[in-house]
Amino acid sequence: MTSEYGLLSPGAHRAAGMADDDAVVAAMGRVEIAWLQALASVGVIEDVDKVSRMIADSRIDATVLRDGAEASGNPVVPYVAAIRSSLDQRLAASVHRGLTSQDVLDTALILLSRDALGRVRGDLTAIVGRLAELADRHRESVMVGRTLTQHAVPTTFGLKAAQWLSGAIDARDRVDGAAASLPVQCGGAAGTLALVGELTDDPVAAAAAFADDLDLVWPGLPWHTNRAPITAVGDALVAACDALGVIAADVALLSRPEIAEVREGAVAGRGGSSTMPHKRNPVLSILVRSAALQAPQLGSQLHVAAAQAVDERPDGAWHSEWPALRRLLELAVVAASQASELVAGLEVDPAAMRVRAEAAADELLAERGRPGSPADYVGATTTLIDAVLARVSGEGPHHG
Amino acid sequence: MTSEYGLLSPGAHRAAGMADDDAVVAAMGRVEIAWLQALASVGVIEDVDKVSRMIADSRIDATVLRDGAEASGNPVVPYVAAIRSSLDQRLAASVHRGLTSQDVLDTALILLSRDALGRVRGDLTAIVGRLAELADRHRESVMVGRTLTQHAVPTTFGLKAAQWLSGAIDARDRVDGAAASLPVQCGGAAGTLALVGELTDDPVAAAAAFADDLDLVWPGLPWHTNRAPITAVGDALVAACDALGVIAADVALLSRPEIAEVREGAVAGRGGSSTMPHKRNPVLSILVRSAALQAPQLGSQLHVAAAQAVDERPDGAWHSEWPALRRLLELAVVAASQASELVAGLEVDPAAMRVRAEAAADELLAERGRPGSPADYVGATTTLIDAVLARVSGEGPHHG
Amino acid sequence: MTSEYGLLSPGAHRAAGMADDDAVVAAMGRVEIAWLQALASVGVIEDVDKVSRMIADSRIDATVLRDGAEASGNPVVPYVAAIRSSLDQRLAASVHRGLTSQDVLDTALILLSRDALGRVRGDLTAIVGRLAELADRHRESVMVGRTLTQHAVPTTFGLKAAQWLSGAIDARDRVDGAAASLPVQCGGAAGTLALVGELTDDPVAAAAAFADDLDLVWPGLPWHTNRAPITAVGDALVAACDALGVIAADVALLSRPEIAEVREGAVAGRGGSSTMPHKRNPVLSILVRSAALQAPQLGSQLHVAAAQAVDERPDGAWHSEWPALRRLLELAVVAASQASELVAGLEVDPAAMRVRAEAAADELLAERGRPGSPADYVGATTTLIDAVLARVSGEGPHHG
Amino acid sequence: MTSEYGLLSPGAHRAAGMADDDAVVAAMGRVEIAWLQALASVGVIEDVDKVSRMIADSRIDATVLRDGAEASGNPVVPYVAAIRSSLDQRLAASVHRGLTSQDVLDTALILLSRDALGRVRGDLTAIVGRLAELADRHRESVMVGRTLTQHAVPTTFGLKAAQWLSGAIDARDRVDGAAASLPVQCGGAAGTLALVGELTDDPVAAAAAFADDLDLVWPGLPWHTNRAPITAVGDALVAACDALGVIAADVALLSRPEIAEVREGAVAGRGGSSTMPHKRNPVLSILVRSAALQAPQLGSQLHVAAAQAVDERPDGAWHSEWPALRRLLELAVVAASQASELVAGLEVDPAAMRVRAEAAADELLAERGRPGSPADYVGATTTLIDAVLARVSGEGPHHG
Repeated sequence: MTSEYGLLSPGAHRAAGMADDDAVVAAMGRVEIAWLQALASVGVIEDVDKVSRMIADSRIDATVLRDGAEASGNPVVPYVAAIRSSLDQRLAASVHRGLTSQDVLDTALILLSRDALGRVRGDLTAIVGRLAELADRHRESVMVGRTLTQHAVPTTFGLKAAQWLSGAIDARDRVDGAAASLPVQCGGAAGTLALVGELTDDPVAAAAAFADDLDLVWPGLPWHTNRAPITAVGDALVAACDALGVIAADVALLSRPEIAEVREGAVAGRGGSSTMPHKRNPVLSILVRSAALQAPQLGSQLHVAAAQAVDERPDGAWHSEWPALRRLLELAVVAASQASELVAGLEVDPAAMRVRAEAAADELLAERGRPGSPADYVGATTTLIDAVLARVSGEGPHHG
Repeated sequence: MTSEYGLLSPGAHRAAGMADDDAVVAAMGRVEIAWLQALASVGVIEDVDKVSRMIADSRIDATVLRDGAEASGNPVVPYVAAIRSSLDQRLAASVHRGLTSQDVLDTALILLSRDALGRVRGDLTAIVGRLAELADRHRESVMVGRTLTQHAVPTTFGLKAAQWLSGAIDARDRVDGAAASLPVQCGGAAGTLALVGELTDDPVAAAAAFADDLDLVWPGLPWHTNRAPITAVGDALVAACDALGVIAADVALLSRPEIAEVREGAVAGRGGSSTMPHKRNPVLSILVRSAALQAPQLGSQLHVAAAQAVDERPDGAWHSEWPALRRLLELAVVAASQASELVAGLEVDPAAMRVRAEAAADELLAERGRPGSPADYVGATTTLIDAVLARVSGEGPHHG
Repeated sequence: MTSEYGLLSPGAHRAAGMADDDAVVAAMGRVEIAWLQALASVGVIEDVDKVSRMIADSRIDATVLRDGAEASGNPVVPYVAAIRSSLDQRLAASVHRGLTSQDVLDTALILLSRDALGRVRGDLTAIVGRLAELADRHRESVMVGRTLTQHAVPTTFGLKAAQWLSGAIDARDRVDGAAASLPVQCGGAAGTLALVGELTDDPVAAAAAFADDLDLVWPGLPWHTNRAPITAVGDALVAACDALGVIAADVALLSRPEIAEVREGAVAGRGGSSTMPHKRNPVLSILVRSAALQAPQLGSQLHVAAAQAVDERPDGAWHSEWPALRRLLELAVVAASQASELVAGLEVDPAAMRVRAEAAADELLAERGRPGSPADYVGATTTLIDAVLARVSGEGPHHG
Repeated sequence: MTSEYGLLSPGAHRAAGMADDDAVVAAMGRVEIAWLQALASVGVIEDVDKVSRMIADSRIDATVLRDGAEASGNPVVPYVAAIRSSLDQRLAASVHRGLTSQDVLDTALILLSRDALGRVRGDLTAIVGRLAELADRHRESVMVGRTLTQHAVPTTFGLKAAQWLSGAIDARDRVDGAAASLPVQCGGAAGTLALVGELTDDPVAAAAAFADDLDLVWPGLPWHTNRAPITAVGDALVAACDALGVIAADVALLSRPEIAEVREGAVAGRGGSSTMPHKRNPVLSILVRSAALQAPQLGSQLHVAAAQAVDERPDGAWHSEWPALRRLLELAVVAASQASELVAGLEVDPAAMRVRAEAAADELLAERGRPGSPADYVGATTTLIDAVLARVSGEGPHHG
């Protein structure tokens, strides 16, 4: 397998095969098979197992589809043609019968989205676990609180970890929300299920069976021009990248040599420079931060498209979603995986934190108006940490 | 009252006073009062009613705060100074005691957000009602289905209205979700509630009382660097603008003279041209469409900021949220109000729809393979419409 | 004067009156007067001085226009109506004769853009001067070079200032490029100059005279749907904010207490905290950084509009430009002014730089492979500085 | 060759091999060779032809680099390691000597950018030629002028083509501007050329020779943190997509069956539907329009990164540029190629235009106030067309 587009997205291989062209082809196949099963379930056709197996076993090279994808404006038309060309005429006619290209591609992208959301969720859960541990362990790790770049009052690393944790839980809630009701797309040429209605008395039952087969939701009507399902996926993944970006920004900052209160775990070969052997760059933080800077524009792209979904199926807006959604799926999956590794390996130096806090005690306690130890002025940090930890175990309040 | 920034956002007066500087000042006052009440409720201070009333009655001109806002980087510092300057020393000291600027400004912006979400919700509900009526009434209004700009198969205007309706309901769900758990911000200088902890044994109780007083949620800890509450508001409003934008794009298109299947309701003086007296421009559609083109970039801005909320309180990212959030609040409120008026007055011409559909019958029925009337090939439109109408009355499935 | 929208954009008063509603009204008046002069210059009408003076002297309150602006979709229609209402019928008919709303509003926004570009240029020139001084003065101020947050090899503060300077010169070049050929908009209802052609044999001569009167360029044809002039202004201002943002990010970082190699000049009352009297926040850096985070989305908005300028005059895309352009003009003017003040007052601590560099000498010289003093390993910094300084005096190469 | 990411960007094969991972590897090789030649030219090393040939002939699979790219944060580190591993120790040491990863990757991306700009320029020139022909040929092709979706006054298709042409010429000017001074990146670890200075007395001469070898500009100093060269490329390509997007939006609209004044050239197999054999979708217009909707967010991404290029080399902002730049290069190249084909094959129906204009004559001439033929009220269209045609031959004024 060659990776044609990973080199400028370091770590891209963490999402290898998840949403590349082969994955799109496979997802389209999965969708066409589910539709055959749905038609069978409502009695339109019989004996679809053989043709389903043939589709599942077909090895259609994405490059073969490229001319057809441009000629028709989407990859479904040449894909269906390729599938049909290997079947006898009767079977060929049953494939894709009653669907439109957008039914297949939207559903395929929803399947890829489900996969990506699941992976992100998994990594967020690992992150939540690790951060809960850090928050609990570092309740007493007093450090300088920094606001607008300057020293403010004392805090603890436990609370900082709890803040990251709170962000990660919120992100996971968003991801869960987006994953909860991912819909099948099913409407036919102009969203009326008209051709399906020629085949069966209850075309909506076919749509519902289609959804069941894919373990997706049938939302009651097609959403060719109501792109809320796509933007909900996008918004959730952007929100997840936001939360990861905050962690990465903090780690990158706190691992600066002048601060040196945390650092990324040492991994052989990681963080090296091409010219300076001693350097240990916070590579995971940098890459996660880079992802967090990219996600908002990708999410915005989905909304720019959604806002212009005119007619029964739109003229370009729909098409502009595809690369942005795919890129966002990969970006979030890679960033979540990297961030999971980042927090798993994070080295915290409470002694360095304490030394700095004590050296800055006068400033840090100026608000209080009485001198003393920074450790005496950490407010409700423990209670605040407990509140987030309660959310981990599902007891606490939540927002966002 | 002069409106300094409305002229380039036609219809801006629909949100007059909602989020301008005076509204920000008033919201900051409301927040400071709530905090006084909260401190009183936990026994830190007494007799706050008088000072609360003084704050409520103060008429602080926003322009007075401008130099101080720049010098400190935010409007809270000069606002608090202005309030304190009118109080005796003891009372002055009690105002803002234990809070940080971000506590006040974030909470004030949440109050403005609640107001905006409420208004958008109100207009979405009106839109839902009207679209439900249109969807039901036009079940039989056959029209050409258009995909990728070309004629596809027949549909009905009822289904088109149901699609808009589905978008509006999804948008309302998003708005409700964002409004459901708007949090108070409360953490003090570095989010530890340290100074509050000097005043009372249970600083978290003060924070919770603060939230209660404002009818907001206390999320368990401050969210100075976890901007999910802000991006959730932003994402919901962008999603609402998406849904409104689709309606506007369709109306603008269908009211083109060559199509002329719908048009905006006639209102004296609206839609006129500066040079062509006969013109009747679809002004509301144009303005709503314009808003829908703007919202994604504003939502993106909130995420760009959220992804970089470093330290205990960030160095510029937070500041970059404010104008974008305010603009998005106003944009969405104005667009929802205009869209409500647009759908309320929409004139539908089913005869024109039918004439065109019948003239194009051969093409529209090509998929079916049998000639006939377009009205015979509208598939499951009625069932699909029913599914959306069921959601209006709270019975149907939903997605997004 | 009240400022309704400044409070959430600290420093907004630096651009007071430049692009608010009153400024738009004044610019529209300036445009209508220029058009009268142009018509007079080609002999269409006579004696325009009196009516020009009446327009110039009219004090039309922007709020009066707000209903008309929404009803017509733009502020020009009610503005022209208001002007005409104060004139006798013959004079009234001559005002705006042959123009369309977009001619007036586009030209008015170009006038505002010219003003903003001029102000930004002025501040960039001040910045260039100050940075040239810093680059020259700090040729020997050795400091730690930082890459990917870690210590790399030595550099000098002179080279850092030269890098900022290089960015500022590039930005000024971009601003100059955008300002060089700002065009008048002139096309009439659908860009054909048809009505003007009823008035005079040579309507293009009128357009050219119109441009001359405003000291703008007549580009040979209207650009109602070719938005390159607007996006060129936007791109230049975004590029300027990029350059300023880099300076601000560096200053915010280097003035962190753990680094403390530079800091913003002390100004009474600036940088204070609402709760911690000792704090000196790098407020200007924070505000400039905040602006730099906002500019890209505003520039993007202009392109989203430009890409969809359909028909002879577009249906919403044009409208979506206005608030973004205005906001970007103000943002850039304020940021440039703040950045100018920032660099003017910047305090550099070469001793602190040297101490840190020497302490880190082993690491900083690892690449070289021989121990020694960081000052011995600063490479071509002096030559590189000279290259930028040569650009200041107009001798050097340039890029971008 | 398999294309892993083309399927969701129909037409992506038009840019096949231009900027994929293999192209990045090849460009890095080209850069490392040029650096060897540069070092040889200043006498640092001898006899580089053999090693240069070995690098040129090496066939390094991008997938081999992926782990190293993540471990180091960029693909240069593993690339250099791979090259060195195939050389003897002395030669190995000379490769990449004195450069930093960013020198190589930035320069490689500039080389890819040059290629993309050149291709876009080529297609814009073809578009300019074709549009000039259309503008000239259709001077008398009277059509309805449309503003804000409604009929306004008459225009000619010649003027519409001239407007598209004006946009294309402006775009080409922008592309030429960006291509004119593409710089080499050369600074070493922290932009001081320190290690190069250990090798030769005149490190800047080496940098200049490096630039010469690649036919790029040496800008006088490195631009690791001054990203103007990258954003200038981005802005130019976005502007090009804007201009192409306007053409596409107009063609998509005017080829609607209710208007039917132009249509895309018929190409066997293009524009077909998966279910409706009669359909002829304006596929090229849809794809170009889709590209135009995507470009602004990619350009914005480059600015978001540029605004935060902190330190001597930044911590994530730089990394976030790469995928956006690559995607924008490909997007613009594909869109320009598709648009070139679109205008080359465009079918114009002047008879349909005339029939509609005459049917609407009363409305179209309302502004004039006298009835007549639309052809009598086309204003200065001919002169305006001539002005743009003069620009084609390099005589006319220009803006933007």
